[in-house]
Amino acid sequence: MSEFIGLAAAALTTLSFLPQALLVIRTRQTNGISLIMYIMFTTGVAAWLVYGIMEQSLPMILANSVTLLLAMVILGLKIWHSLQARTQGATEATSAPIAS
Amino acid sequence: MSEFIGLAAAALTTLSFLPQALLVIRTRQTNGISLIMYIMFTTGVAAWLVYGIMEQSLPMILANSVTLLLAMVILGLKIWHSLQARTQGATEATSAPIAS
Repeated sequence: MSEFIGLAAAALTTLSFLPQALLVIRTRQTNGISLIMYIMFTTGVAAWLVYGIMEQSLPMILANSVTLLLAMVILGLKIWHSLQARTQGATEATSAPIAS
Repeated sequence: MSEFIGLAAAALTTLSFLPQALLVIRTRQTNGISLIMYIMFTTGVAAWLVYGIMEQSLPMILANSVTLLLAMVILGLKIWHSLQARTQGATEATSAPIAS
């Protein structure tokens, strides 16, 4: 029984990042998403992957590889949108008419 | 060595939801956050908690209790904001002047 619950838990927590990645790709909306969260989370999942390799645990390696991929997509788009917003802000500032 | 990596991974993935919860509480912005992700993730973390209790693993019980609490805060605020947006949309629709 606990084996089944563990597998269900792993599948749910791993695949839960898929709808978030798809939403970010589709809407390009990331301002509600915490950059710090995804830096910490992605680093943590990478550490779980290293741990799984050291412990030679195939379920951990598979689950954390999928989660790492999805988390990196979300983190990458979050960084990309933050940089875009910053450059847009900068161009607006420089092109604004200077009050004479 | 792998023990240390496992602990670091657990701490990072658990605490990563704290900055997201604080951002949502502070900015009230959840439209970039996927409701389906947090329903799946919260269910998955609850399952990990049940698994940890069945396996009598204190680290799993502690880590997943913290993550569950933080994930429920984010999920609760996401649902709350979605309901608010819906009722606001409904009141605007009914109070809009009917084109005669």
